[in-house]
Amino acid sequence: MINLEDCRQLDQQDPLRPLREQFSLPPGLIYLDGNSLGALPQRTAARVAQVVNEEWGQGLIASWNRAGWFELPQRLGDRIAALIGAGPGEVVATDSTSINLYKVLSAALRIATSQQPERLRVLSERSNFPTDLYIAEGLCREHGGTLELLEPEQLAAALEPRAAQDVAVLMLTHVNYRTGAMHDMAALTAAAHRAGVLTVWDLAHSAGAVPVSVKADQADFAVGCGYKYLNGGPGAPAFVWVHPKHVERFRQPLSGWWGHAAPFAFTPDYQPAAAIARYLCGTQPIISLAALGCGLDTFSAAEALGGMTALRRKSLALSDLFISLVHERCAGHGLTLVTPREHLRRGSQVCLARDQGGYAIIQALIARGVVGDFRAGDGAQLADILRFGLAPLYVGFEDVWHAVEHLRQVLASGEWQRPEFNQMKAVS
Amino acid sequence: MINLEDCRQLDQQDPLRPLREQFSLPPGLIYLDGNSLGALPQRTAARVAQVVNEEWGQGLIASWNRAGWFELPQRLGDRIAALIGAGPGEVVATDSTSINLYKVLSAALRIATSQQPERLRVLSERSNFPTDLYIAEGLCREHGGTLELLEPEQLAAALEPRAAQDVAVLMLTHVNYRTGAMHDMAALTAAAHRAGVLTVWDLAHSAGAVPVSVKADQADFAVGCGYKYLNGGPGAPAFVWVHPKHVERFRQPLSGWWGHAAPFAFTPDYQPAAAIARYLCGTQPIISLAALGCGLDTFSAAEALGGMTALRRKSLALSDLFISLVHERCAGHGLTLVTPREHLRRGSQVCLARDQGGYAIIQALIARGVVGDFRAGDGAQLADILRFGLAPLYVGFEDVWHAVEHLRQVLASGEWQRPEFNQMKAVS
Repeated sequence: MINLEDCRQLDQQDPLRPLREQFSLPPGLIYLDGNSLGALPQRTAARVAQVVNEEWGQGLIASWNRAGWFELPQRLGDRIAALIGAGPGEVVATDSTSINLYKVLSAALRIATSQQPERLRVLSERSNFPTDLYIAEGLCREHGGTLELLEPEQLAAALEPRAAQDVAVLMLTHVNYRTGAMHDMAALTAAAHRAGVLTVWDLAHSAGAVPVSVKADQADFAVGCGYKYLNGGPGAPAFVWVHPKHVERFRQPLSGWWGHAAPFAFTPDYQPAAAIARYLCGTQPIISLAALGCGLDTFSAAEALGGMTALRRKSLALSDLFISLVHERCAGHGLTLVTPREHLRRGSQVCLARDQGGYAIIQALIARGVVGDFRAGDGAQLADILRFGLAPLYVGFEDVWHAVEHLRQVLASGEWQRPEFNQMKAVS
Repeated sequence: MINLEDCRQLDQQDPLRPLREQFSLPPGLIYLDGNSLGALPQRTAARVAQVVNEEWGQGLIASWNRAGWFELPQRLGDRIAALIGAGPGEVVATDSTSINLYKVLSAALRIATSQQPERLRVLSERSNFPTDLYIAEGLCREHGGTLELLEPEQLAAALEPRAAQDVAVLMLTHVNYRTGAMHDMAALTAAAHRAGVLTVWDLAHSAGAVPVSVKADQADFAVGCGYKYLNGGPGAPAFVWVHPKHVERFRQPLSGWWGHAAPFAFTPDYQPAAAIARYLCGTQPIISLAALGCGLDTFSAAEALGGMTALRRKSLALSDLFISLVHERCAGHGLTLVTPREHLRRGSQVCLARDQGGYAIIQALIARGVVGDFRAGDGAQLADILRFGLAPLYVGFEDVWHAVEHLRQVLASGEWQRPEFNQMKAVS
């Protein structure tokens, strides 16, 4: 049996422990929702104030050049590239994940059908994050394609070359938002390529959470989120990566001036920029981009301590601990672990299913200062889920102890059944 | 002849004079580039710090509901609606102007061709802002349409019903970014409608600068910019309006979860939200949106002083003064006024053409603390342009005097010919 003292020792032995000092979290709060909205870095407020007061207020339009605003998507993109196994000049930070997905899925469909017009199916996962499915559904409607939703265990068969002759794209979120299950990017990409299928990966729950190697794994396209594990702030701009072998094969449809080869030449005809810059579209929200830069800074300090490899080691130790403690201390309360126990299949969150009461349990935990979140099921295939994100930059082992202890108390006492925890509000 | 004392009296008599106290501008700077990037409102820094430290840092994910983050696009949209003659619930603040244009032009093309498949031409103006043309070019390529670029004086003939039988959309920027010339939205829309043509208006240089009445003028679609006259900060989110009669006729192609009827139901299939909310796509950059809110606040104080009508009166008085002073004091230096003298055809900026030296003249003015900007010509139809934006919220009559006096001195002394003003840098 693990006890509190064990957890405290794990924190003391944790070489990444000092990294949490980079964040400003409410005292006493145990924040296990960095998979939804990353915590605030200490430096963000001062940097944002500098952008507002100095760069905007004093520098005014000169700051587009002098403060480097115009190149921010590329500069931040290069830093994100280092976290996902991409090269410099291959990533831009821009727009939202949904919009970036529209760009790359348009490109993937165009590239696939230009070679084999019969390839009109897009394969994805039924429990993929809905906005990914919505974007794909819209593009399929536009292009006369179909979106087919599979269970994870059906993917291998669907990618058999004979079964996949009319498949254009495999579009997956690398780490599932509901279960924390992680796909094998290398294996699925290889299977897809054997069948002539391109791959589009959503790294929303991966970038900054688990090591990713888009290039070594031969992925074709990737997008991801700036405001979850990257700590970029609410609604921070997202990112987009395209394998260099594809990047100049297609003019993505959102052909705005920031993706032009010479944006300030103001020519009336569109000439796409070289490389990933052509995946930019309009002017970007600089204040929010600057905050994303501070989120990425929180990974710089991790570099000297082993970078994503060390963060991954800690993340797995945290989720192993969470799973063990729930197993030891919360048995008999109807919780089912839905996150894979295998390290190779696990992201950086632990998800528990429960037939009912999930929403109220999360509310009761929040009232006790433990922030996880709830994702409702569909009453059929998808269960109600309690999610606990374990961001290794700022979550500690003692946090996990207390979180599970509060969970135990909430369940054992029946506290979650109180009326105030059962009034459903809009869920974020 | 107007003199400095006259200008000072105009400032003293100006009922809108106190409004400039809302802004934080560098002391002594005469900022005539609010048509490119609006000035910093005094309140923005504190509000942004509140969003960062309290709403994000303390409130964390609860702020999506508790701080109203999720409804910001609608709340700000309602305030923008009041500035452009739209109704509540008809505008959202979101994404970039280019992306919003993609949404509405997709809708306009779809609506037009669904009724008359032969309508495949999009008419626009050769000197429209390039990103508008790039987006239209991309969409036309996708949909098999053609983009036709006209001179302003050709528009009337092109909209004759017999000439426009295969025209789907008239896409114009209401106030031209290079000339400051303003189209007659009501007349052109009426002409377009007589020919069965839908209208898409870019209000980037109109919203907050001139009175706009999209609904009274029967426009079909409009987009606009948050960071010019609306003072929302660098790259602030843009806005989109769709006439209620069209808004639910089409699922715009960027069908992300924020435009879903029930975004937090996480259903796998897309059901567009009612009304303008379906023109949302992905998660929005909240810090930048909050700054846009402060920009819009600067118009609230103007409400009690006559609102856009009073701002327009002052804007015209400022540009009349600018034009008169240039005429009186800068004659013989090769400047040509390209902004229309007629009030009904003028936006809120004054543009001067010059065969050569425009870039250097602007650089020399900036060195003297007068910020305008330069837009290069194409060496053929389009001349080199010196632009001076006259944002009536914070530009005064004495500012105009000094700006023109500096311009006179720069020209008369030949100062602009100094080498340091002639080294072309990237232009923003």
